[in-house]
Amino acid sequence: MSVQNQTMSIETKKHELDTLFKPKSIAIIGASSKELSIGNVIIKNLVHFNYTGKIYPINPKEPEIRGIKAYSTIFEVPDDIDLAHVIIPSKFVPQIIEDCGKKGIKSVIINSAGFSEMGDEGMALQEAFLQNAKKYGVRIFGPNCQGIINCDPEYNAYCDFTFTFPNPGSISIVALSGGVGAFIMQSLFDLNIGMRMYASNGNACDISISEVIKYYGQDDGTKAIILYTEGFHKPLEFLNTAKLVARKKPILAMKSGRTEAGAKAAASHTGALAGIDISTELIFEKTGVLSFTNEEEMCQAAMAFSTQPIPKGNKVGIITNTGGPAVIATDELVNSGLEIPAISAKAEEILKNTLLPEATIGNPIDVVATGGGVHFRSALDVLMNESQIDSIFINFVTAPFTDTDEVARNIVEVNQLKKKPIICNFMTNMSFERFQKTAKILQDGGVPCYSFPTTAAKALGALYKFHKIQNREIGFPQLFRDIDKNTVKEIIENSAINEFMSSEKVFSILKAYNIPIADWGIASNIDTAHEIASKISYPVVVKAEASDIIHKSDKGGVAVNIKNQAELISTIENMKNNFDNSALKFLIQKFEPGGKELIIGVTSNGDLGHLIMFGMGGIYVEILKDVVFKLSPVTQVEAEEMLSTIKSSKLLDGVRGQQGIDKKRVIEIIERISQLVTDFPQIKEMDLNPVMAFSDRAIAVDARIKL
Amino acid sequence: MSVQNQTMSIETKKHELDTLFKPKSIAIIGASSKELSIGNVIIKNLVHFNYTGKIYPINPKEPEIRGIKAYSTIFEVPDDIDLAHVIIPSKFVPQIIEDCGKKGIKSVIINSAGFSEMGDEGMALQEAFLQNAKKYGVRIFGPNCQGIINCDPEYNAYCDFTFTFPNPGSISIVALSGGVGAFIMQSLFDLNIGMRMYASNGNACDISISEVIKYYGQDDGTKAIILYTEGFHKPLEFLNTAKLVARKKPILAMKSGRTEAGAKAAASHTGALAGIDISTELIFEKTGVLSFTNEEEMCQAAMAFSTQPIPKGNKVGIITNTGGPAVIATDELVNSGLEIPAISAKAEEILKNTLLPEATIGNPIDVVATGGGVHFRSALDVLMNESQIDSIFINFVTAPFTDTDEVARNIVEVNQLKKKPIICNFMTNMSFERFQKTAKILQDGGVPCYSFPTTAAKALGALYKFHKIQNREIGFPQLFRDIDKNTVKEIIENSAINEFMSSEKVFSILKAYNIPIADWGIASNIDTAHEIASKISYPVVVKAEASDIIHKSDKGGVAVNIKNQAELISTIENMKNNFDNSALKFLIQKFEPGGKELIIGVTSNGDLGHLIMFGMGGIYVEILKDVVFKLSPVTQVEAEEMLSTIKSSKLLDGVRGQQGIDKKRVIEIIERISQLVTDFPQIKEMDLNPVMAFSDRAIAVDARIKL
Repeated sequence: MSVQNQTMSIETKKHELDTLFKPKSIAIIGASSKELSIGNVIIKNLVHFNYTGKIYPINPKEPEIRGIKAYSTIFEVPDDIDLAHVIIPSKFVPQIIEDCGKKGIKSVIINSAGFSEMGDEGMALQEAFLQNAKKYGVRIFGPNCQGIINCDPEYNAYCDFTFTFPNPGSISIVALSGGVGAFIMQSLFDLNIGMRMYASNGNACDISISEVIKYYGQDDGTKAIILYTEGFHKPLEFLNTAKLVARKKPILAMKSGRTEAGAKAAASHTGALAGIDISTELIFEKTGVLSFTNEEEMCQAAMAFSTQPIPKGNKVGIITNTGGPAVIATDELVNSGLEIPAISAKAEEILKNTLLPEATIGNPIDVVATGGGVHFRSALDVLMNESQIDSIFINFVTAPFTDTDEVARNIVEVNQLKKKPIICNFMTNMSFERFQKTAKILQDGGVPCYSFPTTAAKALGALYKFHKIQNREIGFPQLFRDIDKNTVKEIIENSAINEFMSSEKVFSILKAYNIPIADWGIASNIDTAHEIASKISYPVVVKAEASDIIHKSDKGGVAVNIKNQAELISTIENMKNNFDNSALKFLIQKFEPGGKELIIGVTSNGDLGHLIMFGMGGIYVEILKDVVFKLSPVTQVEAEEMLSTIKSSKLLDGVRGQQGIDKKRVIEIIERISQLVTDFPQIKEMDLNPVMAFSDRAIAVDARIKL
Repeated sequence: MSVQNQTMSIETKKHELDTLFKPKSIAIIGASSKELSIGNVIIKNLVHFNYTGKIYPINPKEPEIRGIKAYSTIFEVPDDIDLAHVIIPSKFVPQIIEDCGKKGIKSVIINSAGFSEMGDEGMALQEAFLQNAKKYGVRIFGPNCQGIINCDPEYNAYCDFTFTFPNPGSISIVALSGGVGAFIMQSLFDLNIGMRMYASNGNACDISISEVIKYYGQDDGTKAIILYTEGFHKPLEFLNTAKLVARKKPILAMKSGRTEAGAKAAASHTGALAGIDISTELIFEKTGVLSFTNEEEMCQAAMAFSTQPIPKGNKVGIITNTGGPAVIATDELVNSGLEIPAISAKAEEILKNTLLPEATIGNPIDVVATGGGVHFRSALDVLMNESQIDSIFINFVTAPFTDTDEVARNIVEVNQLKKKPIICNFMTNMSFERFQKTAKILQDGGVPCYSFPTTAAKALGALYKFHKIQNREIGFPQLFRDIDKNTVKEIIENSAINEFMSSEKVFSILKAYNIPIADWGIASNIDTAHEIASKISYPVVVKAEASDIIHKSDKGGVAVNIKNQAELISTIENMKNNFDNSALKFLIQKFEPGGKELIIGVTSNGDLGHLIMFGMGGIYVEILKDVVFKLSPVTQVEAEEMLSTIKSSKLLDGVRGQQGIDKKRVIEIIERISQLVTDFPQIKEMDLNPVMAFSDRAIAVDARIKL
C-alpha cells in the first residue's frame, strides 16, 4: 500500500493552534520603547514583516510604542486578542496568564526566562501560570523561547525576535534550540529556499514539538518539515505524531547529543535531557523520519524537497556538460543507493541525431561545454521519456561561449512538468551579471541548484530515501493468541522487583508465550533429577538453582553434556559440595549443542515501551558489538530486518558448507518476546542468551528476566 | 621526529617549471580577435588579471588583438619568450613546437585538443610534437587542457580561459579534470579563500600532476595543496612526490571514480584510466595525503589550512554564545577524534570573575547571547593559557543587541597570535550591513568562518588529521639479512609464469626468506613418507602433489591429522587410487591444529610494487570481508597497523579466556613477505593461507605463488 492510497484524517476545521500560528491580533505584554529590547524588536519585526493583523503593545506608561498606540493593560484593548507575547519578569507571569484567560486570549508566547530552567523557584512559577492557563483554556508556547513565524502572506506573523526575514515557501521548521532553529532558518534563506512556518518553544511546558509537527502535518502549505532536537520529554507522543505525519510528508530531522560529550553539552544547556539515547534514532527509523547527522546536508536536502516530486525508483539519468563533476556525482549517487542505468537504443539514436558530434551518448550524457539549450533539452526530453529513469541529475557549468540563459530556460520548462525530480549542480561565477541572470531563471523556475556535485547528489539521495520510506510497510505487530497471559500475570505478581527471577519462573513465562525452550525440569534430589533426565532423554545440562547463586558457571554450578545416570549422580554430588545450601535445586535441561548461538535482549524504555536487541552470540556480540535494536512492539517486517541488518547476517544463511538457520522461527521468537514485554511493561530487563538456532528450529536454552 | 626538524632539500634556484608558472613574457599562438574564442579569452584574462609580463599575440593576419600588437610568427617577436599558449588545429602543432624550440621558448601550454584523446591519429601527432619538444628541451603542459594561473602579484599570470579571478592567497590547486579544477577554484573564491597557483594539465603528456605538486611543494607561498584526480598514469612518480611533499605541507586530495559506475564515467571522459583502483587511496595513506570523498568538505577544510596553525593535539576548547550549535559541534568534533576536556580550576575561577552571571563555566564555555567582546576575550585568553587545550572552536551568533564588531576584533587579536588554531562557526544574516562589517573584520583577520557547526567542526577535524599525519612515523622497511636470495632467484628462473608453483618450490622460497612453515618433506612412496613423518613427528597432513591437480581437497587429495604409520599407509593408498598419476608425490607436513587462522595475500600492482593484504581466515575474510591492504614495501609500523585496523582485531588479543596470538611473529612474516616480493617483483600473486597463529608462534601451513 503506498501512501497515496492512505486516507488520513486531516482536520480542515479551525485548529486549536490557529490562534498561535494564524493570529488576527497580537498583544505584546511588556512592549518596550527601548531599541533592541525583545519587547521592542518583536513589534519592529511584525511591522517589518508586514503583519496583516492588529498589534497591541501593552505598556503601563507609554502612550505609544514604535508609533503604535499602546494600552496599559490587555483589558483596555477594545478588540479580541488571538495571541499575546509575554515579556515581563517571571514573577508577574502567573497573574498575567490569569488576565489573558479572563480576556479570552487563547494562545500565549512566553518569551521571558526564569522558569523550569532556573531551579525550584522558577519551576513553581511555571506550575502556577500553567494552572491558570488550564483554568481558562489558554495554550502556552514557551516559556524561555523565541516564538513562531508564519510566512503565509495572509498572516505574515513574525512573532519572534530573530533577525532573518524569509520569503514565503513550503518548508516549516521546529527546533528545540532557538540558536539552531535560527541558523537553519538563515541557511534556507541563504539557499533561497522559502519558509512556511517556524517554531522554537524553549522550555516547552505546554505546546510540544510533537504538537507543532502535527499542526505542520495538517497544513497544506507545508511540503516538508525540518526538525531539530536533542531528545524528547515525551517520546511516545512524538512517536505517535511522527507515525502519522512522516508518511504523508517528509520530516527531515537531526538529533544531536549523539556522543557522550555532545549529550553532556546538551544537558548543560537544556537541563532536563541528558545522556545518550538511542531511542530517538529508533523512533525516527520506526516512523519513517529522515534522519540527518549533518545540518548542512539537511538544509541542502530541504531545497530539493521544497520543489521536486519524490522519485518512483532509484534509476538516475545524468546530463553533464563537463566530465569530472559527473564522475564525482556518480560516486555519491551510487553511495546513496541510486543506479545509473544504460539508456535505450532508441534514446541513443535520438541523441546521436540531436547532440553535437563531440557529445558522449550514454549515461551520463555529456552534451559537452559547447552544448546549448537545444542539446540540454534533447537530453532532458530523452530522459523524461525513458520509462526506466526515475530522476535526472544535471551538471551545468556556465561556459561563457554558450547561451546559458537558454540552457536554463530549457531546464525550467522540463522541470515544470513535475514528472520526475530534477537536481542541478550549477557551477558558475556569480560575480558576472549574466550568470546571476541564468541562476535566477533556474531559481524562479524551481530548479534546486547546488554548488558541488557531491552536495547535489546527496540531496537527490535524500529524495530517494523518502521514496523508500514511503514504500516501506512495516505493518502491524502480529498478535499471537496461543498464549497464556494469566500464568505470566500470576508469576509477575509474585516476583520481587530489581532481581532476576528463578529459572523455573522464567521458563514458565516463556512456555506461557509459546517461546521454545530446551526441555527442562526442576529437581531437588538425584532421583527426581534422573527421572527428569530420562524423560527428556540424555545428554542433559545440569544447573544449580538457589536464590543466592549468582555466577553459577564460575563456581561449577553448570555442567553440560551429562550423558547418563552415573555422570548425573556425580555431577549433582559435586554441586552439593560446591554450594553448601539446603535449598539447592537442580535445573535439568536438554543439552542442545551444535546450533548457532543467538541473543535476544530486552530493556525497558519507560513509556516508550522496550528496546529489543538481536545479535549473534559469543564474539559477535561481545567483541564485534554486532547487534541491532528496534523499539517494541516489533512487527514481522522489523524482526526480519533485525536478522538481515546485523553485519554478520550472511552467517545466518549458512556458509562454508554449513546449513543456514531457521530464520522464520527466530523471527517468531522475536515477535513473541515483543508481545510478552508489551503485555507486561513491568518487565525491565530480559534476555534469551543463547537461543540455539538450527536449520529446522530455534530454541532458547537460557534466559533471564528482571522486573 | 617532527616535520619541523626535518631538513628538506628545497631548491631556491630557478626551477625548470618557472617559465610555466612565472613567465615574464607569453606568446599566444593562435591569438584571435573573435570574442569568446580561447585565443581571445586568454589575452583578455591576462590583461584583466593585470599580468605583469609582456603579451605577444601571434596571428598571421591581424596587426593587433584586443589592442595589443600582434606578430605573424613567434620569430618576429623581438624579445625572449618564456611561455607560449598553443591554440591552433592539432595537425600544425608538431611544427609549432619545433618553432618554439628554435625560438628558445622553454614552456608551452597546448590548449588545443585532437591528440591522444582522439585515437591513433591524434596519438601520432602527440608523439610527433613531443619528439620535437625533447629535441629542444621544451616542456609541454597539456595538450587538451586549461592551463595555469599564478596569483602571485609579482606575476598575475592568468594563462587559462576560465572565468574566476581569485584573490592572491596560499592554496594551490592541481586537477586532472578542468571542470572540477574550475569549480574548486570558484568555491575557494566564494569562500573568500585566496589562491596561490592553479594547474589543470589535460592529457598530461609531459608535465605531470606529480611534477606540479613537487613544484608547489617547493613554493614558499603555497601553504596547502588541493589535488583532484581520477587516478594516476604513473602512480610511482606520485608516490615518490607525495612522500616528500605531504610531510612538509598538507595535500588535500580527492580521488573520484571510487564506485564501479563512477570509474566507468571516469573512463568515458579520460579514456586512459579505467576501473576501480584502491592503490591511489593506499598511496594517499602511505604518504600522508589527506583524503576526502566530499569536495565541499575539502574546500571548507582548505579555508582552515590557509590561515591556521596545525594543532599540537586533539584537545578542543569551545566558546559559544548559543547552546544548540555547541551540542552539534561537540558531536562532530568527537567523531573526528577530538576531545573536549575540562578546564582547570584556575581557568574556571577567572571565568567566574569575568563572564556574565548567566554564563556557563566549563567546556563548552557559554558566554551567552548577551556576552560581548570582553567576555569572548576572557574566554579566549583563558583557553590560550590552558596548556592542555590545543585548539579553539567558536560559535558566534551575531545577536543584534551586542557589539558584534567588538567581539570580532577580540577574536581577531587572539587569532593573530597564531598560537593555537581557531575555527569559527559564524551564524549571521549578511543582509544586514552591520553584520557584513563584522564578517569582514573576521575575514580580514584571518579567522576561518563557517555557516554550520558541523562544517566548522569537520574543518578542525581535518587540521587535527594533518597533525596526526605529521606525527605518524611509518619508518623504513626493515631489511632482513638472514635470507637466501640466490635460492629464490634460481627457483623463479626455473618456473613458468601464469601458473601456481609446486608446494615444494613455494615452501623452499618461504624457507629461503626465513618465513616459518610447518615442517614438511616430499615423498614419492610410502617408505619415504613414513620416514619424513617420523622425523617431523606425527600427527601429519598429507597432500597429493602433481602439476595437474588443482582442487586437491575436493578430490580427497588432502588428509589431516594422520596419527601413525598405519593411517599414513592407508591414506597414501587411497590417494594413489584417487589420482591415477605416475608422477604423484606426497607432501608430508606437520599437522598444526588449534591456532587462529590468518591470511596474508599479495598481488602485483605494476611499477607501484605489490598490494599486501592481511585478514583473519575463514568467515572473516570470506563473509565479513574484514581485510586491510597496504602498499609494499611495508614497514614494521604499517604491518602493526594491519593487525590493529581489521575490524575484528580484538580477536587477535585473545577473548573469552583464549590466549592472544603472537603478533610480533605475524608482523615479521608480513615484513618478510614484503621484502620477498620487493626483491622479486616478478611475483604476481602470492598467499599464505592459512597462517596458523598461536600464543607463542605463527607458522604458514599452506601457500601459493604465481609469477
